[in-house]
Amino acid sequence: MSKPKTAITPTRSEDFPEWYQQVVKASDMAENSEVRGCMVIKPWGYGVWELIQRQLDRKFKETGHQNAYFPLLIPLSYLEKEAEHAEGFATECAVVTHHRLEAVKQEDGTTKMVPSGELTEPFVIRPTSETVIGSAFARWTQSYRDLPLLINQWANVMRWEMRPRLFLRTAEFLWQEGHTAHETKDEAIEETRLIHGVYEAFLRDYLAIPVIAGEKSEIERFPGADMTLTVEAMVQDKKAIQAGTSHFLGQNFSKAQDITFVGRDGNQQHAWTTSWGVSTRLIGTLIMAHSDDDGLVLPPRVATNQIVIVPVTPKEDTRDAVIDACHALAKTLRGKTWEGEPIRVHVDDRDLGGGVKKWEWVKKGVPLRVEIGPRDLESRKVCLQKRTDAANQKAFVEKEEFLQEVGNHLSEVQLGLLDRAIKFRDENLQEVDTLDQLEKNFSEKGAANWCLAPWAGTNEEEEALSKKHRISIRCFPVGELGEGPEKPCIVTGKPTTRRAVWARSY
Amino acid sequence: MSKPKTAITPTRSEDFPEWYQQVVKASDMAENSEVRGCMVIKPWGYGVWELIQRQLDRKFKETGHQNAYFPLLIPLSYLEKEAEHAEGFATECAVVTHHRLEAVKQEDGTTKMVPSGELTEPFVIRPTSETVIGSAFARWTQSYRDLPLLINQWANVMRWEMRPRLFLRTAEFLWQEGHTAHETKDEAIEETRLIHGVYEAFLRDYLAIPVIAGEKSEIERFPGADMTLTVEAMVQDKKAIQAGTSHFLGQNFSKAQDITFVGRDGNQQHAWTTSWGVSTRLIGTLIMAHSDDDGLVLPPRVATNQIVIVPVTPKEDTRDAVIDACHALAKTLRGKTWEGEPIRVHVDDRDLGGGVKKWEWVKKGVPLRVEIGPRDLESRKVCLQKRTDAANQKAFVEKEEFLQEVGNHLSEVQLGLLDRAIKFRDENLQEVDTLDQLEKNFSEKGAANWCLAPWAGTNEEEEALSKKHRISIRCFPVGELGEGPEKPCIVTGKPTTRRAVWARSY
Ligand SMILES: [Zn+2]
Ligand SMILES: [Zn+2]
Repeated sequence: MSKPKTAITPTRSEDFPEWYQQVVKASDMAENSEVRGCMVIKPWGYGVWELIQRQLDRKFKETGHQNAYFPLLIPLSYLEKEAEHAEGFATECAVVTHHRLEAVKQEDGTTKMVPSGELTEPFVIRPTSETVIGSAFARWTQSYRDLPLLINQWANVMRWEMRPRLFLRTAEFLWQEGHTAHETKDEAIEETRLIHGVYEAFLRDYLAIPVIAGEKSEIERFPGADMTLTVEAMVQDKKAIQAGTSHFLGQNFSKAQDITFVGRDGNQQHAWTTSWGVSTRLIGTLIMAHSDDDGLVLPPRVATNQIVIVPVTPKEDTRDAVIDACHALAKTLRGKTWEGEPIRVHVDDRDLGGGVKKWEWVKKGVPLRVEIGPRDLESRKVCLQKRTDAANQKAFVEKEEFLQEVGNHLSEVQLGLLDRAIKFRDENLQEVDTLDQLEKNFSEKGAANWCLAPWAGTNEEEEALSKKHRISIRCFPVGELGEGPEKPCIVTGKPTTRRAVWARSY
Repeated sequence: MSKPKTAITPTRSEDFPEWYQQVVKASDMAENSEVRGCMVIKPWGYGVWELIQRQLDRKFKETGHQNAYFPLLIPLSYLEKEAEHAEGFATECAVVTHHRLEAVKQEDGTTKMVPSGELTEPFVIRPTSETVIGSAFARWTQSYRDLPLLINQWANVMRWEMRPRLFLRTAEFLWQEGHTAHETKDEAIEETRLIHGVYEAFLRDYLAIPVIAGEKSEIERFPGADMTLTVEAMVQDKKAIQAGTSHFLGQNFSKAQDITFVGRDGNQQHAWTTSWGVSTRLIGTLIMAHSDDDGLVLPPRVATNQIVIVPVTPKEDTRDAVIDACHALAKTLRGKTWEGEPIRVHVDDRDLGGGVKKWEWVKKGVPLRVEIGPRDLESRKVCLQKRTDAANQKAFVEKEEFLQEVGNHLSEVQLGLLDRAIKFRDENLQEVDTLDQLEKNFSEKGAANWCLAPWAGTNEEEEALSKKHRISIRCFPVGELGEGPEKPCIVTGKPTTRRAVWARSY
C-alpha cells in the first residue's frame, strides 16, 4: 500500500469545506448523529472542550464571576416580552408542546409512541438565556447593594440550523453564557469590554488565534443589544468566524423584565445588563485556523494529549523493556508542568504497526510524538517529531536533554502556530481606499482578502453592499486598526476616521 | 428584634418537608423557577455541584473512562426499539414537535409567538441516553479490539415530574451518565460493580453519607436492565433516598440497537453494556442527611467555601487594620491544602452587622467561621466557630496554632458528620424476623425504622406488601449485611439466607 502524498483528501486548496469535514473525521473529534443537525462530540474533541472550559472558567472566576444553572425550557411569554430578541430567534426554536408519550399498538403488532399530554403553554428549548436569567435577576435585585450580579452558565443550547456543519454551526451546541446586571451604564459597558478582552487574550494565548477585536455594526448586533463586541478569526480559506461576542444590553432587557432596584438616591431604577458567550464553535475555528493537509494540528495548551509516546518493538525479546521505558518516560513527563499544568502524555502500546500509529497521531494533531526503540534504550535517546514540522522530519535527542527541554518544545509549537497565524492574517488583510478596490477584491475568483475600509455609510448602504458580494462588516476594530487619518467613506465619500473590516464569513 | 430559638422555622421534628424547603431557601442553594418543576441552581448550590463533579470526574478518569457529549434530542423511533425502556419513561417525556415560532399580531396590538414548522418525526428531550449512545456505540464497534468502550457524559436531562421538590425530584436535573460496552458478560458485570463501589466510597468519603449498598429487586430495576445496583441513603426523617445506581444491561440494548462486533473467534456477537449515574439529587440527599434546625451543614470536602472570615469592626479607626488582617489570613489559608486541594476561604467584608453576617453563614452551612476584631490583632488570636458545634460556642485560639491546625479542624467536621450519620443509620436499621414485626414498625405514627428482613417472596408478594404500607425493598444489601443464617422469609416462610431492606423513600 503506497502512502498518499497527504493524509487528508482532498487538500485545503482542492476543496476547503470537504477538507474540513475529513479533518474532523480523521481526527475522531466528532461525528454527525442521526438527529438532524446535532453532533456527537467524541472523546478527542470533548477533551479539547474540557481544556477550553477549565481555562476560561478560571478566568471568569478570577474576574469575580460565579457559575449557576437556569432552566433549559423558556416559556413563550418570556420571549414575547422583548420583541426584537424574540424575532431574532423565532425561526430557529425547538418547541416543546407535549409532556408525555402514549404507546399505541399498531396493526403489525409493533408499538408506536405518540405525543400526548398537550401543554397549555408551549416552551422553547433555550437558544440563549437572557429572558430566563433576566427573570431570576428581577427576583434577586431589590437594592443597589444586590448589584452587580456576575453570573456565568455552562450549558447546551439549541438553534434549529438549516445548513449544519460540525462544530461551526450545529442545532445543539455547548457554550458558556455570562449574564450580568449593574447599577450604572458605565459599569455595564466596562464589564462588556472586560470580557471582550478576556476572549481576545484567550484566543491568542491558548488557541493561538490572533483575532481582530471590534464592535459590530447596528445591523449585525445581537437581537436586543445596544452594543455587540466581537472577536473575529481569519481561517485558512480567509473567511471570518465570529468566535465570541460580548453584548451591552442597555436597559432593554431590564425594562422588558423589570429588573429594578432602589438606587443610592432612594429612587427605583432599571439595572444595566450585559451578556457574553463562546461555544464549541471555538473548536471549529481552531481546526480551520491551524490544521493542514495531514490533518488536525492542536496548540499544546488545548491538546487533549500534548505528547504521545510510541514504543517501536521490532523484536519480541526487547519488547517488554521498550514498553516499560515508554511508560517510565510518560510517568516522568506527567510529573512535570508546562504553563502551570501537568503535561498530558499518552503511551500508545496497542499491538499495531508503527506506521499506522504514527499517521493516526499525525491526523489527531498531537503536538509532540516520541518514539522509543530497542537501540534507543542503549543510547539513552528518543526520537522526537513535532506536528508542526514536516511529517518525515525527526530528531534523535538525549532523553535527559528532552526532559529538560520539553517545555520549550511545547512553547515552540504553541508560539509557532500563533506566529504563523499572525503572518497569515496580516498578509490577507488589505487596506482599501475606494469602493472599486473593495469590489475588485471580492469579485476575484477564489478566496478574497479581508478589506479595511473607511466607512460612514447608512444601514441601507451597508446592507446593499453586503448583499451584492455576500460579504459583511465583521467589525469596526478597536484600537489602532480601527482609526486612521480622515479619509472619504468608500460609499458615501463622507470624511471619516472610522474603519470597517469587510469579509466573507461562516 | 429577639432572635428565634432556631434559625429555621419549622424545625425538623415539627415539619420535615417544610423544614427542607426552608433550609434550601435560607442557604440560597436553589429556588423554583416559573418553569414548572425546573429549578434555578444558585451559585452557593452550584458550587457544591462543581465540587461533586470535579471529584467524581477524577475518579472516572482514573478508572479509564473518557468524557463525550451526545445529542439532547432522541427520535421516538430510538425509544421504540427497547419496549420496556420506552414504557418506563413514556409518561414523563417532554416532546419537541415544532422547529420554529411565528409572530402573530393580536387585536390589542401585542405579538404572540405560535409554534410552527411541524416536525415529521417528533423528538423527546433525553430522560437518559441509553438509546442515543447505544446507536453511536453500534457505529463505533466492529471488532473486539474496539472494546471496551468506557464513556461518561455530564449533561442535563428531563423527566416531567408531577410532584417536584428542589434537588430531590425536578423536571430538569444535572447528572453524569456512564455508558460502557464490553466483550464479555463478566467484564460488564465487573464494571457495574466497580462503579457501584466508586459511588459508595464517594458518598462516604466526600458527602459523609454512609449508604447501604445493594441490588434492586426485579420490580425496582431500571427499565431494560438485568441488574441494578444502588446506594441508598438514610436521611433524618428516616426515609430512603436512592442516591446513585449502576446498571448491568445484559445484551438488551445491544440487541435492540445492534451493537455487534466480530469476536476473537471470528463470529459476530452482541456487546454487553452497562450504564450508571448520579445527579443533583445528591445535593438534596446531602441537605437532608446533615442539616439542622439552624440550616444547612456542609461537609468540608464539598463546601463551596470551607472557611468564612468575618471582620469585627466596632471602631472606625481600627477598621482598615482589621479588614487587612482578615484578607492576609485568607491569603495564607488559600496557600495551604487540605485533602489535596487548596483551602477555599471567603472574607465577608460587607458593611453589615456582625450578627446578621454570622447567621447568614450558619444558615449557609460553612464548616468553619473565623472572627477577627481589634483586640485580636494585639493578642494575635482568632475567634473560631465550628458549624457542627452549638451556635454560641466559640474558641479563642492563637493565630499560628489555628494555621497549623486548620486541616485537623476541617477533618474533625468532615469525620464528625460521617460518625453521626453512621450512628443514626445503625440506630434506625432494625432486624425483623416476622411480618408482624415489620408491619408494626411501618404502621406506627411518625418515622419508621428501616427493616432488614429475610426475603424469598415473589414479585406479586413484594408489590402487595409495598402497596399496603407505602414502602419498598430498597435493596438486597451486598456484603455482610445482605446475608445471614438461614431464616424463614417473612411472607412465604421459605428458608433463605437473603435479606431485604424495607423502607419508605423519596
Ligand atoms: Zn420596569
Ligand atoms: Zn443484532
